[in-house]
Amino acid sequence: MQTILQGIGKEVIIDIERPFVIIGESINPTGHRKLREALLENKLDYVRQLAIHQVEAGADVLDVNVGVPELDEVAMLPEVIKLVASVVDVPICIDSANPEALAAGLSVAPGKALVNSVNGEEAMLKAVLPIVKSHGAAVIGLTMDQDGIPGDAEQRVAIAGKILEHAAREGILTEDVVIDPLVMAVGVDSNAGVITLQSIEMIQQEFDVNINLGASNVSFGLPERQVINQAFLALSIQAGASCAITNPMKLTSTVRAIELLLGRDPFAGRYISHYRSLQAKQD
Amino acid sequence: MQTILQGIGKEVIIDIERPFVIIGESINPTGHRKLREALLENKLDYVRQLAIHQVEAGADVLDVNVGVPELDEVAMLPEVIKLVASVVDVPICIDSANPEALAAGLSVAPGKALVNSVNGEEAMLKAVLPIVKSHGAAVIGLTMDQDGIPGDAEQRVAIAGKILEHAAREGILTEDVVIDPLVMAVGVDSNAGVITLQSIEMIQQEFDVNINLGASNVSFGLPERQVINQAFLALSIQAGASCAITNPMKLTSTVRAIELLLGRDPFAGRYISHYRSLQAKQD
Repeated sequence: MQTILQGIGKEVIIDIERPFVIIGESINPTGHRKLREALLENKLDYVRQLAIHQVEAGADVLDVNVGVPELDEVAMLPEVIKLVASVVDVPICIDSANPEALAAGLSVAPGKALVNSVNGEEAMLKAVLPIVKSHGAAVIGLTMDQDGIPGDAEQRVAIAGKILEHAAREGILTEDVVIDPLVMAVGVDSNAGVITLQSIEMIQQEFDVNINLGASNVSFGLPERQVINQAFLALSIQAGASCAITNPMKLTSTVRAIELLLGRDPFAGRYISHYRSLQAKQD
Repeated sequence: MQTILQGIGKEVIIDIERPFVIIGESINPTGHRKLREALLENKLDYVRQLAIHQVEAGADVLDVNVGVPELDEVAMLPEVIKLVASVVDVPICIDSANPEALAAGLSVAPGKALVNSVNGEEAMLKAVLPIVKSHGAAVIGLTMDQDGIPGDAEQRVAIAGKILEHAAREGILTEDVVIDPLVMAVGVDSNAGVITLQSIEMIQQEFDVNINLGASNVSFGLPERQVINQAFLALSIQAGASCAITNPMKLTSTVRAIELLLGRDPFAGRYISHYRSLQAKQD
């Protein structure tokens, strides 16, 4: 199953048979004070830097979120997307809970963007899927609904099915829906990792769709988060995930190592060329 | 399947249902010049330090290898084992290719030791298994023989079967044989990781034995070895490995993170207490 995204100059294919796709998470003001202030003061040079640095570090797609309560998201989101698209050529992942902002973002995003996200809530599906369809975009479907995030894999599979069904009814191809089975913090619930890994396997087997992860949530509240995030990426990719919204500065090397260990990197070519590009930047 | 080892004061159970067992690899002069020189000059205080530091870092068992060509291994191995057993209470993994040295080591090792190793070669099985049996030890069986290391998982499973058969004939219980499916360098053969992961799954399913890994070999010759070793541990533990000979200073945190992510660490208790013990040492 191939989910094809397009930036200005670059096509990205999400596919379990291909290199794992890294969606850079850093353009998001949640818990990121410096970006929050930059957005509020309309000093967008910092956004430009975040875009360039993430792509240099290995991001294949960039998530763009400007959700700050004091800001007019419908005005700001397209402005930031245009800015990002003016400095990097990768596809954009438009991240908002506001359908109007998503529509405004999609109308300026180059190529074919990814919408982050819908979930299994009827009202949201009805509001967002027609926008996704009319702009020819792809969409991330989170396996939660009005009752929250199910505590077992079976119910997450059921919500994934519901999202895929609504998308199909809207005329969106299955390949343009990427399911995110949601990762909760293992520090809060020590079964959270297992439930997500089971969900990845079951959703992949049942629907053969691409699976995305917000891979950094899992370590929330614990020390040495990087060690947990690295291990979880390995377990998730082995289970069947094909892309993640994560920090490319910290995790691209790990992703390339996992692919190599799973026999998906002939002659270690991608692993070594990633390392060389990091070295070149340090010189 | 439980492989029970005993040190002076400490019992260690290798079992896929229990915490992953870390066998500290550092008392081994191969590629470790400082230890090599210490052994040649009989300055054993450095060995004492290596033993203590590894146990503090999380090693459950210590591998002891004194293989330096200029040294009399039969005399040296028991001396170093006695020294190690005088400063730490964990079980010993006696590491030698010389059956006479293994016998000498086993006769002074406290409790129940692990012998590292036999392989599928007839002559070696005949030489080493009776020594293992007569000392009531456990043994690691490497899935290679006189023809080298098989390039596919099926043949590694066949060699594991042969080792288990010979052990049974010698009166050694299946639970006292730990199979090591061998990890080659992914930098040399980019299918090496996959073959080992398949071997782990197949051997575990076929024989239900404990699986050991020499987890650091996989990254040989590549940059950023730590990143590769971390990812490989995650993939191997998910595939069914229950212990590894590795560097506890570098990988104990990763092992604890993997267990937490696989739902094997209720309330993140072991992860957090490992972190606290590291913190306490830094203070």
